[in-house]
Amino acid sequence: MAKKNLIVGQSGGPTAVINSSLYGVVSEALAHPDEIEHVYGMENGIEGFLNGTVLDFAEALPGEKLSYLQHTPGAYLGSCRYKLPESLEDPVYPELFRKFEEMNIGYFFYIGGNDSMDTVSKLSRYAERIGSDIRVMGEPKTIDNDLVHTDHTPGFGSAAKYVASTVREIILDANVYEKKSVTIIEIMGRHAGWLTAASALARKYTGDNPLLIYLPETAFDVEAFLKKVEEAFEKNCNVVVCVSEGIHDAEGTFICEYDNSVGTDSFGHKMLAGCGKYLENLVRERLGVKARSVEFNVSQRCSASMLSAADQQEAVAAGVFGVQAALKGETGKMISFVRQEDADGIYHMTCGLEDVNEICNEEKTVPLEWICNDGSDVTDDFIRYAKPLIQGKVDVPLGEDGLPVFVYRK
Amino acid sequence: MAKKNLIVGQSGGPTAVINSSLYGVVSEALAHPDEIEHVYGMENGIEGFLNGTVLDFAEALPGEKLSYLQHTPGAYLGSCRYKLPESLEDPVYPELFRKFEEMNIGYFFYIGGNDSMDTVSKLSRYAERIGSDIRVMGEPKTIDNDLVHTDHTPGFGSAAKYVASTVREIILDANVYEKKSVTIIEIMGRHAGWLTAASALARKYTGDNPLLIYLPETAFDVEAFLKKVEEAFEKNCNVVVCVSEGIHDAEGTFICEYDNSVGTDSFGHKMLAGCGKYLENLVRERLGVKARSVEFNVSQRCSASMLSAADQQEAVAAGVFGVQAALKGETGKMISFVRQEDADGIYHMTCGLEDVNEICNEEKTVPLEWICNDGSDVTDDFIRYAKPLIQGKVDVPLGEDGLPVFVYRK
Repeated sequence: MAKKNLIVGQSGGPTAVINSSLYGVVSEALAHPDEIEHVYGMENGIEGFLNGTVLDFAEALPGEKLSYLQHTPGAYLGSCRYKLPESLEDPVYPELFRKFEEMNIGYFFYIGGNDSMDTVSKLSRYAERIGSDIRVMGEPKTIDNDLVHTDHTPGFGSAAKYVASTVREIILDANVYEKKSVTIIEIMGRHAGWLTAASALARKYTGDNPLLIYLPETAFDVEAFLKKVEEAFEKNCNVVVCVSEGIHDAEGTFICEYDNSVGTDSFGHKMLAGCGKYLENLVRERLGVKARSVEFNVSQRCSASMLSAADQQEAVAAGVFGVQAALKGETGKMISFVRQEDADGIYHMTCGLEDVNEICNEEKTVPLEWICNDGSDVTDDFIRYAKPLIQGKVDVPLGEDGLPVFVYRK
Repeated sequence: MAKKNLIVGQSGGPTAVINSSLYGVVSEALAHPDEIEHVYGMENGIEGFLNGTVLDFAEALPGEKLSYLQHTPGAYLGSCRYKLPESLEDPVYPELFRKFEEMNIGYFFYIGGNDSMDTVSKLSRYAERIGSDIRVMGEPKTIDNDLVHTDHTPGFGSAAKYVASTVREIILDANVYEKKSVTIIEIMGRHAGWLTAASALARKYTGDNPLLIYLPETAFDVEAFLKKVEEAFEKNCNVVVCVSEGIHDAEGTFICEYDNSVGTDSFGHKMLAGCGKYLENLVRERLGVKARSVEFNVSQRCSASMLSAADQQEAVAAGVFGVQAALKGETGKMISFVRQEDADGIYHMTCGLEDVNEICNEEKTVPLEWICNDGSDVTDDFIRYAKPLIQGKVDVPLGEDGLPVFVYRK
């Protein structure tokens, strides 16, 4: 294959390590100057690319600056929520491939979640249809950990570590007064409860808070919940409850819909918020105790303060592995993670390749056998699964202003 | 003075370094075995002391464990919000001093904010009245930075660093899409805007977000605010606004009261929440743009993830200084911070002593001359004031579970 250029984009919501995957792709691409001439970034994903906003990494992040991507949260290249048309007959496809040809693109990398893998699927299928030799690859990214055919996804480990450590701190905060109280913590996750389950990692000893954990994988019953809270007071006068934003009743009605109006995002997903607030008011009114709610909001996906070194290193590794695979001729694949355990039970991870068509638009939820106590806790199997993913500390450099130094486009 | 015992308590809301002040008091007291025999902690403040819950630090945190207080947020001893009666004729005073005598207490230390200094004031006045030689000392603590007669207070620097770094991360998160958006961040502070002002430290360059910052020191006008947001769109399509929870209009009505019902805490303070949510809805409806709000909530006061080394070291220093002063015979004093600048303009801090009666129940707000742009920003004078307080990193050890190791009472 003649010398070609590589272009990479980011799509969907940011994570703490989406830029580490970017670093992996870009640094590995720059390490193959005989095969890859320019390494481009599309600003604001495929939507920005269509509008012609592209940067050259050699100019944008020269020298050491590129490595700063590894501790910069957010999405350095910007993002989009643009879904390519279902029909490959749509004129956007020839337009895109004409642009690829103009820029001598041989490798197209897209970092994102299920919706982004849908883009990778469509572009790779269109490339095959027209006989283009462009190699189209997907790099996984999501704090939700809901991609199928991979043990876990980059972004989950750091988000889980943020959730676990912040819940641990809030438990300390909740314990300062000797008066019955309930703290409801609402954690991201519409349909998959992985991140909410990670709150179980916060426990310092058996029987510690959070005493109740509710995922969207099982139906939530308000009366059963109130009974569980009353039982929990027998263990601790300060009860901490972690709930997924997507908890719903047996009929499928979201708890947040019990008293809130909700909208939808550009992919038609329901935009949820407020089940924590709803439960706070419910507990106060029905049980007559002090109650408060905390919504973790965007910090759980954009904080570099609790980066998991394991997560960060794996995100870089996935980027590197993807470029190596594309150079060997792979296309239409997403990089997956395969869990290995050595004889001593020590966790190792290796990268694999999965057909992107089998990944896009699918969702992996927490196995029901990992949920226990009538849907109010997770089992030790989950702890064993998640613990290796939050290990290790990343040293984020501070500037003269006393704050973390990040790289960014102005 | 014969060998006496020291007792220390914590009161009011937790901070990231209230346990560092505790460490300073306890470690210095233990370093004077010829004068101080036992070092006790009252669990849950003066209220817990009245109920007889006391621990001995030599047993509770032996050896190296004591030093773990320096990175443990929350309030190790637990807290209370108990206000001593105004009248010194109340029978609780002889009851307290009888207990002090039984336990051979010679030194009483209380770590807290203005309400806690009120306790120190009353106990020291009662001691004087009855001719007791107990030395009663106050150690300052508050994320609000609102104590008078001190340059700043322990707890503010770490909370300010948390606010600034988290706002910086949310700015990165807000910038990923190329579509007009407004992010409203609501920050703690009823009457004093110090912590909200700290969001200005998040700017990476002149003209960076947060483009608008509103403190409770000036009146907030909804129409003027909407106009400012529209102007801000000329600088950045993603506008980040930081507001204090206590912003109010010219008539003194809190903005959160525009659509929320509010309660009061046990000191009669109004419990505020929700001006961010109110402004989010206002912006969406009136300007027709994407809007979201983030409430920082308890993490800003209980997170060890962004400890300021300067703040932590000063909190320890205040504890140490207080014990040394009490041993020299001081009583009825709060430890204050006095700012020094050397010839090169480098910041140094020394400790001082202030009459606690002049501190309790007073509030220090942000000087009006540090607020600019019609009440929508802070001046460089504030930046110069706050920057030294957020410097330096604290290494919080991680356990085998991958999370910060804290000390706690079960």
